[in-house]
Amino acid sequence: MPVEWSGSGPQLLMELDRSAPLRAQVEEQLRTAIQTGRLVAGERMPSTRALATYLRLSRGVIQECYAQLQAEGYLTSRAGSATRVATTISIDRPTPAPLLAAEAPPLLADFPSGVPDLGLAPRADWAWAVREVCRTAADAEFDYGDAQGAPRLREVLTGYLRRVRAVDTCAANVVVCGGFQQGLGLVLRVLGGPVAVEDPGSVGNVTRAAGGATVPVPVDEQGIDVGALAASGARVVVVTPAHQWPTGVVLAPARRHALVAWARECDGYIVEDDYDAEFRYDREPVGSLQGLAPDRVIGLGTVSKSLAPALRLGWAVLPSALATAVVAAKAVADRGTPQLDQLALVTLFESGRYDRHLRRMRTEYAARRDVLVSALTRLAPSVRVTGLAAGFHAIAHLPAGVAEADVIAAARERRVGLYGMSTYRSTHDPSPAQLVLGFGNTSQHEIRTGIGLVADLLSRR
Amino acid sequence: MPVEWSGSGPQLLMELDRSAPLRAQVEEQLRTAIQTGRLVAGERMPSTRALATYLRLSRGVIQECYAQLQAEGYLTSRAGSATRVATTISIDRPTPAPLLAAEAPPLLADFPSGVPDLGLAPRADWAWAVREVCRTAADAEFDYGDAQGAPRLREVLTGYLRRVRAVDTCAANVVVCGGFQQGLGLVLRVLGGPVAVEDPGSVGNVTRAAGGATVPVPVDEQGIDVGALAASGARVVVVTPAHQWPTGVVLAPARRHALVAWARECDGYIVEDDYDAEFRYDREPVGSLQGLAPDRVIGLGTVSKSLAPALRLGWAVLPSALATAVVAAKAVADRGTPQLDQLALVTLFESGRYDRHLRRMRTEYAARRDVLVSALTRLAPSVRVTGLAAGFHAIAHLPAGVAEADVIAAARERRVGLYGMSTYRSTHDPSPAQLVLGFGNTSQHEIRTGIGLVADLLSRR
Repeated sequence: MPVEWSGSGPQLLMELDRSAPLRAQVEEQLRTAIQTGRLVAGERMPSTRALATYLRLSRGVIQECYAQLQAEGYLTSRAGSATRVATTISIDRPTPAPLLAAEAPPLLADFPSGVPDLGLAPRADWAWAVREVCRTAADAEFDYGDAQGAPRLREVLTGYLRRVRAVDTCAANVVVCGGFQQGLGLVLRVLGGPVAVEDPGSVGNVTRAAGGATVPVPVDEQGIDVGALAASGARVVVVTPAHQWPTGVVLAPARRHALVAWARECDGYIVEDDYDAEFRYDREPVGSLQGLAPDRVIGLGTVSKSLAPALRLGWAVLPSALATAVVAAKAVADRGTPQLDQLALVTLFESGRYDRHLRRMRTEYAARRDVLVSALTRLAPSVRVTGLAAGFHAIAHLPAGVAEADVIAAARERRVGLYGMSTYRSTHDPSPAQLVLGFGNTSQHEIRTGIGLVADLLSRR
Repeated sequence: MPVEWSGSGPQLLMELDRSAPLRAQVEEQLRTAIQTGRLVAGERMPSTRALATYLRLSRGVIQECYAQLQAEGYLTSRAGSATRVATTISIDRPTPAPLLAAEAPPLLADFPSGVPDLGLAPRADWAWAVREVCRTAADAEFDYGDAQGAPRLREVLTGYLRRVRAVDTCAANVVVCGGFQQGLGLVLRVLGGPVAVEDPGSVGNVTRAAGGATVPVPVDEQGIDVGALAASGARVVVVTPAHQWPTGVVLAPARRHALVAWARECDGYIVEDDYDAEFRYDREPVGSLQGLAPDRVIGLGTVSKSLAPALRLGWAVLPSALATAVVAAKAVADRGTPQLDQLALVTLFESGRYDRHLRRMRTEYAARRDVLVSALTRLAPSVRVTGLAAGFHAIAHLPAGVAEADVIAAARERRVGLYGMSTYRSTHDPSPAQLVLGFGNTSQHEIRTGIGLVADLLSRR
């Protein structure tokens, strides 16, 4: 029923649905009219009698509407004078984002890094685990819970990490976090000071998490250069010892000792990002650095690679001296990670479904790795490939005279997504020319197709 | 099979289960022995031949164990000399927490505030919603997702908040957070500067979230004193206009305008904590302050009261000018709230189960409120009760001459949990003597029992 006001009030089109509650409709439409500026600040409202007549409603209904909108601050009225739109009203609309450029055609093969296979995420297991938790958890588990993390999950993680990563800790020193990123941020803020970071590595991520400057320290075939670290003056370093990100180098035994000795000497701390150590192919995984020096190493882990990034579940294993401060920081940050998600993860660990999923994924990634290596060996034999001991990415070393950016651009034209090492270097140096070939979310078929399409670009010209 | 080493190596008891993989067992036990200090730093290990003989294993197995532990840094060996425990090993055990004092006997009735009924948490609805999401979500939803929040949830929240809270926003200005606490922290860190807070109110919470000093501003029967706010010099204030926490006062219309005018005048911002507005009994809820001045008010909401605190889901509705900065802060904090939980909430909204749960809870809380009021009227008629227009707590004003702390202590002896207003005052002033009686997680039976047990304590002596 369209109604046009005139004379005593502003022009306003109102549509009422006579089969639904009328007062709520009138109220809502007046509020929207004020919020969108159709009724402007200071404007005189029609009298309740006039509006009631227009709308064919009782005057009482309109009076109630006006009273409600007055209590909320949209209308003002003084004894003996007309009701008006309040003058304090304002409108706030964001500037619309610029239209996106025409979308590029979809890629035929893409080799991004750091993402596991999303199509094989354990959907059914997760739904099952959440249902089990909702069915069996005590009422109290629906409360805020322990900001440090559910005690049961901290116990289970302690045992699991000892078993598979030789981590040496206890539930009191574990904090459950919203993924790796939150754990890193909490720890770096507690530690403070300049933070050293592997170069190439996650320079940008660490810098953002630290909220301050980072000091890049070079990585060679043995892992991080501990001499250069010592010379940097930093007393905190973030490292990926089991499978350096992104070079794939494993930190050599002598360097492991040197790194721990450095931390002891300068009263410093080592933050160990153990991001993909579950996926090791040729031999069993190198145990965590944390187990060697639990008083000097903070171990950070996540299910983003083993289950799915969408779950945002991770943990920090802390030296006793830091546990209280990091728990306090976590409590201030968000009062704890979602409790039901934590208990669902416990259920996956305890039922053996976590391990089963890992075994399945390890077999799949190992097969992809073989497909990648054999495709490169066959089609681009001059390309050296390294970093494949674990995880789901490889480094392709381009022959001399082949420029990283050229290869990436030419591959994009053939609808293949390739990514260069230069973006992980603190200086963005394009040399030596290397590609970081991720295959976590890239099927065997896509790998074959992709390498087939770009093999000639990778070879010596 | 217990084995004792002697002669060439340290004494070490090892138990091997011959039916399970042996190499992993030996490795694990050696690692644990080193981590726990049973094998000390620098100690000489038995030769691989000797250990193999002792354990009745092939020498190759022991050599593999030693090689693995050497790669991990637990052992060191130089050509021509014995393998030794690395000298960089250390042990880190937290000081055990002091034993808890003997537990107090359980309460017969407890009146804590700020917690909804945990026994009525929508377990089945949540499990169903997660299953629907796991069944139907696109593969890409298992990736990191949008740090600002799932676009679908931001759309649904925009519509829902417009409908029930008269919030005026769009999806581009909404950020999904890990509960109220995270939203508050992100917003206050972006805004910076001293933060004004209602007194009595959540002084401690806000101070922690702000990471700095707060300025208490008195609350009277009309809500926050805007004159005092203006005099404080702060340009950011955190308020609870719909149902002041904890006094239960509704911010008066004139004060709503004065508050918005204050923000405009000093280029300041109002953070609106809309914590329990879904539960309003006598009339429809007062619309949010945010709708009046979307460019000056940050609206914070949560499902902690409507569904359960364990879910850790909330949102911030932002002025356009702040949206980009808060989204960036959220991305750094944790790369976004768990995606599947967000989509499950969408499913609850869209299926109508969210509204249905709210209706059910509203009826239940209204019944408890009636039970509380009638018990107090009958048994402690001299106690004035206020703040009951919404939510699930009330303020009991104790008669002159009755001390808050005495009542609380005496009630505790009768196994009834009562909580005083003084803890919410910046000065902890015990006067006027008032109790904050929460009944969100207190059954009707408990309310009757509890008030029966303490009524004489509340009355004029």
